[in-house]
Amino acid sequence: MSSHFLHDLLNPKSIAFYGASNSYQKFGSMLFMRVINSGFEGNIYPIHLELDNVQGLKAYKEIADVPEIPDLAVLVIPSKIILKILRECAEKGVKYFVIVSGGFREMTGNYKNTLTEEIIKIADKYGIRIIGPNCLGIYNGWLDPDENKSFNMMLTHQIGLGKFSLVSHSGTVSSQLFRDPANMDLKLGKTLSIGNEANIDLVDFLEYFKDDDETEVIGLYIEEIKRSKKFIELAKEITLKKPIIAMYGGGTRAGNRAISSHTGSMAGNAKLFDAMVNETGIIQTHYVEEFLDIASILSKPSFVYPKGNRLGILTTFGGPGALVANNAERLGLAVPELSESLQQKFKKFLPPTANCMNPVDATFDPNILNFYVKYPKMLMKSGEIDAIILIGVAGFFYDILRLQEQEGSKDMVSQEAFIEQLKDLEKVLITPTIKFSQKYSIPVIYINTQNLASTWSSKIREQGGIVFKFWDRPVKALIKICKYVEYRKLHS
Amino acid sequence: MSSHFLHDLLNPKSIAFYGASNSYQKFGSMLFMRVINSGFEGNIYPIHLELDNVQGLKAYKEIADVPEIPDLAVLVIPSKIILKILRECAEKGVKYFVIVSGGFREMTGNYKNTLTEEIIKIADKYGIRIIGPNCLGIYNGWLDPDENKSFNMMLTHQIGLGKFSLVSHSGTVSSQLFRDPANMDLKLGKTLSIGNEANIDLVDFLEYFKDDDETEVIGLYIEEIKRSKKFIELAKEITLKKPIIAMYGGGTRAGNRAISSHTGSMAGNAKLFDAMVNETGIIQTHYVEEFLDIASILSKPSFVYPKGNRLGILTTFGGPGALVANNAERLGLAVPELSESLQQKFKKFLPPTANCMNPVDATFDPNILNFYVKYPKMLMKSGEIDAIILIGVAGFFYDILRLQEQEGSKDMVSQEAFIEQLKDLEKVLITPTIKFSQKYSIPVIYINTQNLASTWSSKIREQGGIVFKFWDRPVKALIKICKYVEYRKLHS
Repeated sequence: MSSHFLHDLLNPKSIAFYGASNSYQKFGSMLFMRVINSGFEGNIYPIHLELDNVQGLKAYKEIADVPEIPDLAVLVIPSKIILKILRECAEKGVKYFVIVSGGFREMTGNYKNTLTEEIIKIADKYGIRIIGPNCLGIYNGWLDPDENKSFNMMLTHQIGLGKFSLVSHSGTVSSQLFRDPANMDLKLGKTLSIGNEANIDLVDFLEYFKDDDETEVIGLYIEEIKRSKKFIELAKEITLKKPIIAMYGGGTRAGNRAISSHTGSMAGNAKLFDAMVNETGIIQTHYVEEFLDIASILSKPSFVYPKGNRLGILTTFGGPGALVANNAERLGLAVPELSESLQQKFKKFLPPTANCMNPVDATFDPNILNFYVKYPKMLMKSGEIDAIILIGVAGFFYDILRLQEQEGSKDMVSQEAFIEQLKDLEKVLITPTIKFSQKYSIPVIYINTQNLASTWSSKIREQGGIVFKFWDRPVKALIKICKYVEYRKLHS
Repeated sequence: MSSHFLHDLLNPKSIAFYGASNSYQKFGSMLFMRVINSGFEGNIYPIHLELDNVQGLKAYKEIADVPEIPDLAVLVIPSKIILKILRECAEKGVKYFVIVSGGFREMTGNYKNTLTEEIIKIADKYGIRIIGPNCLGIYNGWLDPDENKSFNMMLTHQIGLGKFSLVSHSGTVSSQLFRDPANMDLKLGKTLSIGNEANIDLVDFLEYFKDDDETEVIGLYIEEIKRSKKFIELAKEITLKKPIIAMYGGGTRAGNRAISSHTGSMAGNAKLFDAMVNETGIIQTHYVEEFLDIASILSKPSFVYPKGNRLGILTTFGGPGALVANNAERLGLAVPELSESLQQKFKKFLPPTANCMNPVDATFDPNILNFYVKYPKMLMKSGEIDAIILIGVAGFFYDILRLQEQEGSKDMVSQEAFIEQLKDLEKVLITPTIKFSQKYSIPVIYINTQNLASTWSSKIREQGGIVFKFWDRPVKALIKICKYVEYRKLHS
């Protein structure tokens, strides 16, 4: 268990909440509702000047009335009363705060905004720590994983628990990426919106995540780095053990205009940022889908790092095989032609129309056991490739099943026998390959053009398989992962 | 109605089908099943040496027994009997063929493959036209749109009917992209897998689509261009009226290895292909998702072309606004700072924390009517931008509704009143903006991080709105569309 103060802040046992009411359409009420719905079992004390009851919970007029010292106070209130409330809570003994309210330096473009300065003064005086202001707060999926309880102010949808932790200067990036979990393969541990960083900044989070067992992959959305020297030192240390993936909101004129008014960040320089990224081994991306893709691959418990950048392409789909080969080679992976002897081994099993050079194109190969298990293993054992993309993992058997059910004709092959065949198929087709993958340290990525939540994609994912619907994004993600592997080799 | 021969081929009134049986797991049976399930109402004559009945339909021993001359014959049979069957059908009077069977030049790497040559000879002798060999065939959604009937050998899922037509050297690209229609915003008219092009090639399809009223946007997956001079001539003519979007499977060493064994295509040169694309105004992409994104935007009936490349960003999400601004400017769109007078107009309505420079960041603006209608209109009327991305079209009201239903507390705002408020909301928030968009010829793209099939995204799409879940891909698609607009300006 981490002894860092942020661990305590993220795992409060009791909360005071300012700014919730019984009108669901109010912002503070929405955040409050999420805390209640996420199953937080500690004491929750809504503070409200007029109401006796907020969303079913007894409300208190002021913090002094609360019968214990809450671990955390959440403030969703007008900025003009922030200082007063902050002082009252600090006097009561509250140590940790989330100030959601905005209207600070981002209004004036002036970092030395008086209100922010006052907050910092109070924080220093009382030794309190504050996330925000101008943020959305916290999601901590690890509050009580055994009981499936989280501390959630932000997420509107349930998402699986994993070891990806995200810290963001944008409330949206911290909270809105997860509204379609069925179409993502990402499991999430913690996500935080940290706003203007009056008193807790990125460096604090890097320090926390460095030794946090619940964090294996770190994601950052950055608008400004306040303590850049310390940040770089820490990032260098962390990336040798845990990957950091970062998106940067500044750099161009338009981007800088946006961040200066968003979090009041200073205009950034893309070249400086790129240099920092290269120096620290941070995986940088400009694209949110790529950010999520890399995070989902790296935080998959079964994922293993490739040892090099040679891609093996195993496909039943000729066109996509060609497109992957083209993109991989064009963008920086090697797609080596397989050795003559390995090609000969494949030729023993494959139909005469098949290409064995790499891509290995099994065409419409009816022997799925070969395609899913034997061929990947042959590629892995060869030592000729470092990563595999398996294209055309199409789950056609489920299409057939569906069509048989629709049709229901008596002339058809026995429905029961077919269902029996399909039972536990993933344990035959996927599990062994994942095991080989780990043994040889060769990652395998499956491409199934069905929905990620389709039966077959779900079954592959349940076995630990990494699944994408289309084939472009995993190639791009792999390239960045290989570059990171290269960095670690050079700096370890 | 098109008088091109391909129109007849795609709209047969009767079909002979070789290679279907009562075993659903056989390839030919699967294609046949789709034809039946798609509601084809003409006569279907399965030809089978042994069976009297195939999937519920009377089967015939040979084509001579069929009581009429079928418009089209589909052959899913071993290549060794292809010539015999082809002759028998031609003797019967069948004019159009789809030869699904593979094992032709792609086996030998030799274009002058004897079997292909023999097929061409027979075709020439009888004046028959053949799609394939080595293909998956046809989907024509326009067979009988009033009755919702299609001619479908390929698609496993129903997809909405539109004016995007796709022709592909890859069976996968023609058929497998559409297996998750709920997460796509693309409507499809026709898709064809044309394999080795023994007798009908890309040029034939360009000729057909040029004047085909059911085709407004053309998609191509290309491994080889056989009649390149004619192709370029036609493409130049077409792109001035209808966009052509192309992906190319060759170019790199690995890509060329793949295509040579896939369709037996000659090794390609990426630079030559790029030059051809630039000369003809074809929109090229390397990525299947981008291919689909551009196709879905351009084939949306409400879509209007931008007049230039100045992007206006209207957002409630600060971080994504910054990321869009950054990517747009970095990749080639202009993101102009709005004029002082326009900024002043926005400042009248926006909260003091809002940025009005572009991005226009409305932050957590409770006035959704302004955000959805007034602000886009202000941007459009200004003449300062050519396209708009609206970020943070979040449909939170539906989240609130869902949570209210879960909670069911009596203290909450009246559920009925709220549902009443939401009724027809899209007609208030979306429809006027789509109309302005068309009036000013300024396309609007909505970003909602919910599932595309979510209530709010669906409602926006129903009104003609273009919706993306994340913000990167529409920026990239817009850049290619703007480049195409530029080409048309220069060449019209």
